[in-house]
Amino acid sequence: MEMTAKDLAAALGGTVEGNPEAKFSSFGKIEHGKAGQLSFFANPKYEHFVYTSKASVLLVNADFQPKEPVEPTLVRVPNAYDGMAKLMKLVAAKEQKCRRHRGRCRIAWSAKLGRSVWVGDFVTIGKNCRIGDCTRIYDNVTIGAGTTIGKNCIIYPGVHIFPGMVIGDRVILHAGCIIGDDGFGNVKLPDGSWEKIEHLGNVVIGNDVEIGSNTTVDRAQMESTIIEDGVRIDNLCQIAHNVVVGKNTAMAALTGVAGSARLGEGCTIAGLVGVVGHIKVADNSTIGAHSLIIGNIRKPGETWYGNPAILHKDYLKAYAKFKQSANED
Amino acid sequence: MEMTAKDLAAALGGTVEGNPEAKFSSFGKIEHGKAGQLSFFANPKYEHFVYTSKASVLLVNADFQPKEPVEPTLVRVPNAYDGMAKLMKLVAAKEQKCRRHRGRCRIAWSAKLGRSVWVGDFVTIGKNCRIGDCTRIYDNVTIGAGTTIGKNCIIYPGVHIFPGMVIGDRVILHAGCIIGDDGFGNVKLPDGSWEKIEHLGNVVIGNDVEIGSNTTVDRAQMESTIIEDGVRIDNLCQIAHNVVVGKNTAMAALTGVAGSARLGEGCTIAGLVGVVGHIKVADNSTIGAHSLIIGNIRKPGETWYGNPAILHKDYLKAYAKFKQSANED
Amino acid sequence: MEMTAKDLAAALGGTVEGNPEAKFSSFGKIEHGKAGQLSFFANPKYEHFVYTSKASVLLVNADFQPKEPVEPTLVRVPNAYDGMAKLMKLVAAKEQKCRRHRGRCRIAWSAKLGRSVWVGDFVTIGKNCRIGDCTRIYDNVTIGAGTTIGKNCIIYPGVHIFPGMVIGDRVILHAGCIIGDDGFGNVKLPDGSWEKIEHLGNVVIGNDVEIGSNTTVDRAQMESTIIEDGVRIDNLCQIAHNVVVGKNTAMAALTGVAGSARLGEGCTIAGLVGVVGHIKVADNSTIGAHSLIIGNIRKPGETWYGNPAILHKDYLKAYAKFKQSANED
Repeated sequence: MEMTAKDLAAALGGTVEGNPEAKFSSFGKIEHGKAGQLSFFANPKYEHFVYTSKASVLLVNADFQPKEPVEPTLVRVPNAYDGMAKLMKLVAAKEQKCRRHRGRCRIAWSAKLGRSVWVGDFVTIGKNCRIGDCTRIYDNVTIGAGTTIGKNCIIYPGVHIFPGMVIGDRVILHAGCIIGDDGFGNVKLPDGSWEKIEHLGNVVIGNDVEIGSNTTVDRAQMESTIIEDGVRIDNLCQIAHNVVVGKNTAMAALTGVAGSARLGEGCTIAGLVGVVGHIKVADNSTIGAHSLIIGNIRKPGETWYGNPAILHKDYLKAYAKFKQSANED
Repeated sequence: MEMTAKDLAAALGGTVEGNPEAKFSSFGKIEHGKAGQLSFFANPKYEHFVYTSKASVLLVNADFQPKEPVEPTLVRVPNAYDGMAKLMKLVAAKEQKCRRHRGRCRIAWSAKLGRSVWVGDFVTIGKNCRIGDCTRIYDNVTIGAGTTIGKNCIIYPGVHIFPGMVIGDRVILHAGCIIGDDGFGNVKLPDGSWEKIEHLGNVVIGNDVEIGSNTTVDRAQMESTIIEDGVRIDNLCQIAHNVVVGKNTAMAALTGVAGSARLGEGCTIAGLVGVVGHIKVADNSTIGAHSLIIGNIRKPGETWYGNPAILHKDYLKAYAKFKQSANED
Repeated sequence: MEMTAKDLAAALGGTVEGNPEAKFSSFGKIEHGKAGQLSFFANPKYEHFVYTSKASVLLVNADFQPKEPVEPTLVRVPNAYDGMAKLMKLVAAKEQKCRRHRGRCRIAWSAKLGRSVWVGDFVTIGKNCRIGDCTRIYDNVTIGAGTTIGKNCIIYPGVHIFPGMVIGDRVILHAGCIIGDDGFGNVKLPDGSWEKIEHLGNVVIGNDVEIGSNTTVDRAQMESTIIEDGVRIDNLCQIAHNVVVGKNTAMAALTGVAGSARLGEGCTIAGLVGVVGHIKVADNSTIGAHSLIIGNIRKPGETWYGNPAILHKDYLKAYAKFKQSANED
């Protein structure tokens, strides 16, 4: 990426104040910006950094009135914060275009790839797969037979998708994630050994979902493990067989959801959380980091915390007394 | 998979009641079954679903007497639950046959592959490896020099096995798991930096073991990290250098066992558990989710819970008081 | 590896007592050593094992005076423990030499590879990458365009490095780790859905760093996620966008550090720890396993523990009372 202040103003509908040919090729925060970088200034509390900034270009609100001399070229837009977000989207989109089509890979003859599908190197795509228009599949990915992937998806390097999975549009599967491996189901035999329960279901992922790097989503025993539209799952999470993750629920890293649990819509689940199997979590629940949910959460909109989790405010009260007890005789 | 009611009865030694040509190509639970699906009915509490089921075929106990009209074709077997399990095994086994032999991969000339070994694409198998009969190695797997893998194993996509490992028969290594990477061993030098301890041992995995997706099993410093027969390890677990996991012990996701710890036989360890290094856990111990084991567990058959873990029943009593304290003045 | 007692003495500057042609090809602890193995004896408490050892060769301190007959050939060196460490380094280094150059891989023409770079099979190296002298890149690795990797690094199988990353000298990236995937950043829209925040920064890794198997290090939104010199990160850890991990800090498995947190230098962080976003942890802090850090730790050199973490000694006192409360009526 290399851009001038003039290009930037044109892209965002802004005006230039200073050298219109000032160039930048990366981004720096207002407090760190160096020559060759673009910074932005939106939060008044950082104004003092404007006057010492070494960035080449500074994106500011249209109504910004400097109180001291400013070194960077200014580009004024109605809202600098929104402008920055728009620019980052433009750059990200641009970097993802102009890529070659089909590397050294093995694609089954019966697989149907849509228009402008991009496939990297060392990729295998099994029989009867369907890949929607403009989906990008990076290197070292495997996609099992009969899997369907929608339009405008991104499948990053090292992702492995098992046969028979169903994935919606605009889904992003981050590097190394595993979709559709066996559930962890075992029956104890009288001699203490385990008999494996076969898992013949699949995973169904809705639209606009992101699944993090090295996260694992097990397929259902029968029927489907379901990740509904708009869900965001961070890195290194475990979603077990037959789980349902409700629409727009977000989950931070290293969280595990055990078999057949149902998470409602709009939940926010922090990192290192455990949810035991076969329970339901109501819509819009918030679960604090490092908590364990061992029973149903029935009332929507509550915040839970602890091991096992109780209402957040109760945990904090009880923990305050716990801490205090360290100082009592 | 496509099967008729008649096929199903033949495979399970049952009898058909209704249309013997009724077809199914997937499975649905008794409460969800749709046309084209097989459901099964074994638990009397779900009987009311039998009379509204839209499944094409329903597997039932031989002595089932419907109290109302039933739409699906019935297949009667002595025990519907066992019949379903048997069918799922048959289907799983069938789907794993009839695969091509040796994709685009690099196999060292000195590697010895048994009868009917199946190797996917983009696989590397190092010098002097031995792979037993009927083992299947999926895409993008690497197997280091001198490693031995037994018969009838499944090595799923993206697994990386380091040189010199020893793996038994009927072992399943799930996608993305890592067997035999360096242990995490460092010695602090006077200047605060770390000197790496080399790890020249290996990992020895017994028979009938399953290791979950993206799980990591480090090799020993000297000698071996040992996973005994029949062990089941779920996804995203960490087994450190020189650990011993006893026969038939099962461990749920996101659990970590630190260096040189020894877990007994027949233990059940829930998810997100930590076991510190150099301790012993007695046979048949049960560890609750999200617990930390910081000392030896000497008496077999106990249940532990908490951080650090104490006896489960004591933790629950103490936690009840902890919760209650939130409501006191 | 195969070596004689004579070779060993020559390599370590020691003397042989017994058969100089005695061979070993692996290592065994003093209490387990078998024929064909080397053991070492340094800690006096294990002396009784010396007299029953079946190892072929035994490395001992120069001043060791046996009180009973000893079967293995002895190799005497000034310090047996240091000698063993030196030997293990020699063996590890030897096993990593003598490898072929460039397998079946796709290396962009504009990528610049230093002297003696070794590249495995099914590797992709993007445009304008620079790889330093003597760096080894194993199978199924992907390296995005514009990434720089220093000298004498080891990139193990299945590692995926995104475009534009900067990696120092003597860095080891263990199998399956992901460097530079998107940070987990989302803005909630009024309808409850999430808008993705693009991440256009990178990851900068210093010299002498090790990052564990299947660990994930997200790239910054702007600027860099920074892993300073000498850091050791174990398997299955999550380092979020814009985090800074200070020099020589070590972190055990399954630990997660949320966005923009700053860990000081020389910290020791145990496994299954969570650090919430935007906080600072002082230099030389120690964090106990399974803890959650929810606020700044300002004073260097303290030990913290619990959920949320408090001073370790206070947690243990309070927890002792918590445990005791289980036994009170």
